[in-house]
Amino acid sequence: MEIILLSGGSGKRLWPLSNDSRSKQFLRLLPDGRGGYESMVQRVYRQIQEAGIDASITIATGHTQIDPIKSQLGSKVDIVVEPARRDTFPAIALSCGHLYFNKQLPRETPVLILPVDPCAEEAYFKTLLRMEAVLQKGEDDIVLMGIEPTYPSEKYGYIVPQGEVAEDGSRKVKHFTEKPDLERAKRLLAAGALWNGGVFAVRLGYIMDLVAAQVEARDFESLHDSFQKLEKTSFDYAVVEKAQRISVVPYGGKWKDLGTWNTLSEEMGAEGVGTAIFGEDCVNTTVVNELGIPVVALGLKDVIVAASPDGILVSDKGASSYLKPYVDAITERPMFEERRWGEYKVVDYVHYEDGTRSLTKHLTMRAGRRISYQIHKERDEIWTIVHGEGEVLLDGHRMNVRAGDVVYINRGRKHAVRALSDLHFIEVQIGSRLEEDDIQRLEFDW
Amino acid sequence: MEIILLSGGSGKRLWPLSNDSRSKQFLRLLPDGRGGYESMVQRVYRQIQEAGIDASITIATGHTQIDPIKSQLGSKVDIVVEPARRDTFPAIALSCGHLYFNKQLPRETPVLILPVDPCAEEAYFKTLLRMEAVLQKGEDDIVLMGIEPTYPSEKYGYIVPQGEVAEDGSRKVKHFTEKPDLERAKRLLAAGALWNGGVFAVRLGYIMDLVAAQVEARDFESLHDSFQKLEKTSFDYAVVEKAQRISVVPYGGKWKDLGTWNTLSEEMGAEGVGTAIFGEDCVNTTVVNELGIPVVALGLKDVIVAASPDGILVSDKGASSYLKPYVDAITERPMFEERRWGEYKVVDYVHYEDGTRSLTKHLTMRAGRRISYQIHKERDEIWTIVHGEGEVLLDGHRMNVRAGDVVYINRGRKHAVRALSDLHFIEVQIGSRLEEDDIQRLEFDW
Repeated sequence: MEIILLSGGSGKRLWPLSNDSRSKQFLRLLPDGRGGYESMVQRVYRQIQEAGIDASITIATGHTQIDPIKSQLGSKVDIVVEPARRDTFPAIALSCGHLYFNKQLPRETPVLILPVDPCAEEAYFKTLLRMEAVLQKGEDDIVLMGIEPTYPSEKYGYIVPQGEVAEDGSRKVKHFTEKPDLERAKRLLAAGALWNGGVFAVRLGYIMDLVAAQVEARDFESLHDSFQKLEKTSFDYAVVEKAQRISVVPYGGKWKDLGTWNTLSEEMGAEGVGTAIFGEDCVNTTVVNELGIPVVALGLKDVIVAASPDGILVSDKGASSYLKPYVDAITERPMFEERRWGEYKVVDYVHYEDGTRSLTKHLTMRAGRRISYQIHKERDEIWTIVHGEGEVLLDGHRMNVRAGDVVYINRGRKHAVRALSDLHFIEVQIGSRLEEDDIQRLEFDW
Repeated sequence: MEIILLSGGSGKRLWPLSNDSRSKQFLRLLPDGRGGYESMVQRVYRQIQEAGIDASITIATGHTQIDPIKSQLGSKVDIVVEPARRDTFPAIALSCGHLYFNKQLPRETPVLILPVDPCAEEAYFKTLLRMEAVLQKGEDDIVLMGIEPTYPSEKYGYIVPQGEVAEDGSRKVKHFTEKPDLERAKRLLAAGALWNGGVFAVRLGYIMDLVAAQVEARDFESLHDSFQKLEKTSFDYAVVEKAQRISVVPYGGKWKDLGTWNTLSEEMGAEGVGTAIFGEDCVNTTVVNELGIPVVALGLKDVIVAASPDGILVSDKGASSYLKPYVDAITERPMFEERRWGEYKVVDYVHYEDGTRSLTKHLTMRAGRRISYQIHKERDEIWTIVHGEGEVLLDGHRMNVRAGDVVYINRGRKHAVRALSDLHFIEVQIGSRLEEDDIQRLEFDW
């Protein structure tokens, strides 16, 4: 089986932990059962393994997520990078192109497509195996997972089945209904309709035929080049609703969207993550603290406190659903990013009256990783090594560095660094514009 | 008239703004009426001027408060530094010694003694003038301010007057009652008793006679040397309660202790200080934000959010009175200090697994100020100048520095810096113990 995980875009509904460069699926806030924490994407990967599914995994995503995926999952997954964000049909088409052209898998290969951030129990993943089995009977073009509804929601799509329940638990699908009003939703529930959770099983060739109908794709590169010509629409609209032969396999366990602090904090279990001191009078209060300083919470009820280098949220849990417009007004650069080599935190950022700025980062590199050879045009950087050992490449010259050493990188100087052990350094940036996009990456075989 | 302001010790009841090195009276959180903010000590100084009191001011305090007082009041006041904290009688005795020996003021000089942090209106300060006038009649050893009680408090001392009200509004004092129970407090109110607000008028010679009865003091130095022999007790106990002839002048206006976030936030007026975004659904919620990142508050009622480099407090305003035991457990070094040359903030502090540490500060020096010539034994420092210009003295060598320059200060190297303009630099400390007491100050006539 091939699994395609769809890793969606960034957003601020979990600000200040999520920001323009850190999507919610990468926040390491969920108990991993071994005393640590894992992210949504790490949990899905683990749950797929624990369900005994023997599958290769491909993640379809944008280029901003390459670094966090590599940091969190290493090389255990393939990453297919969409040249632009263009809805789920083009993303799935490109990923299937990767399976077909690059991995040269046969047309009959079953492909399971699911979102990267479901909060579900093991039965959800076992259901993938049942969907594959139904697909293998050969009676269907597409097999869907149907989530058994718990209330007449107006915000989900419904799958309306027909006919008998087969021995394998599947039913044929009659039609779909998008976001009904309350009355209609109640009638749908009464008729046995299921929520569409965005989980599909399909044969690789079926998708490649649909792709071929839209663009000429001789190989992965030509498909990649034609990406912008693929219909900008959802997989549901482009494929599922047009298919003739569809079955659905029901799933009745936990299924939640952890998209707000309210729902996420329910899943976090303990009182929080990071250094926090609670008064005995706190009730249903959660602290998520990524800053290196303590949070003290006294006399609070139903409150979420979330602190990161980007900012501090203090919100009634219910009110946290309305966070987005308030944080959309915050246009400051991201103050934390997870990269394939480790992570950085901005610890100080000052705008002076004369228009100059200074920005100070703490960078943490993992042993063996490296930061690519690069040039900045608008800023000088001064690195002070504070822990560990590394090798710096500066305008072609190599030097070993350790705690106490300083590296001057005036604007225009080529520089790279490799961590020989876990390496920490303080980077002071000086200039009038201090943004991550001021970077020119250079090829260098180091 | 001479005024002695008693500037009390540090405390954590306004944590994380107040800490072991920053007392509540130095927090710049009170609206100054000109669109800015002032501290309690700045406000008292301003109110004394505005009340038209022609007085020299001496502040009695410990050595940790010299820097914030000089930073906030400059050289407008005399500072008398107690060699150790030893209650109010020794503090007042030493300050009177300063007036008598150093300033050579006559024994008849009226001295007004008051705490540095009253939250009161102008009439309170006008009352000082009335107290002086009563003292000048020559009928009393001591004249007190009596605060007109607003409820039968069990936590204040009461002044019980007797006899007629004089033409100047004063009354003779019959006796004192400390912290009565509720029933007794009610009877005291009915009998016209007043709260003792710790404000006294006395002649300089009267205090010097009491001092001479305890220690031999030929001059200020010998008094200073005998400080530890002065009775460790309050001025109330040592002087007031033993005086034969006492009058009291009543004050009936606002009089509050801004010792908790609950009372302080009432006085702060606006929704807070620093960058904050409030949801429309917030009620009676105050944000005090000294960090350079935004605070977003949604759906909160009666909550105080206070954030500083020392930590983050989120508390129900009523519950904030019970803060102290929770923050007493936090033993980390102070992360912010106001110094006579400016201020520093710790922006990053990491303890590594091998026992080494790194600490990063942003220092802000005001033009013309300097940091004394000094040596550290347990840490290396690397300074990166990020804004402004300065002159550095390093092992006797002078050099001018500006944005982008780096100064290496290995442990044991003598160093000082003078700000030629407002000067900002990032200081990275590396060592296994990074505390403020690792400093040896050197004499150098620069």
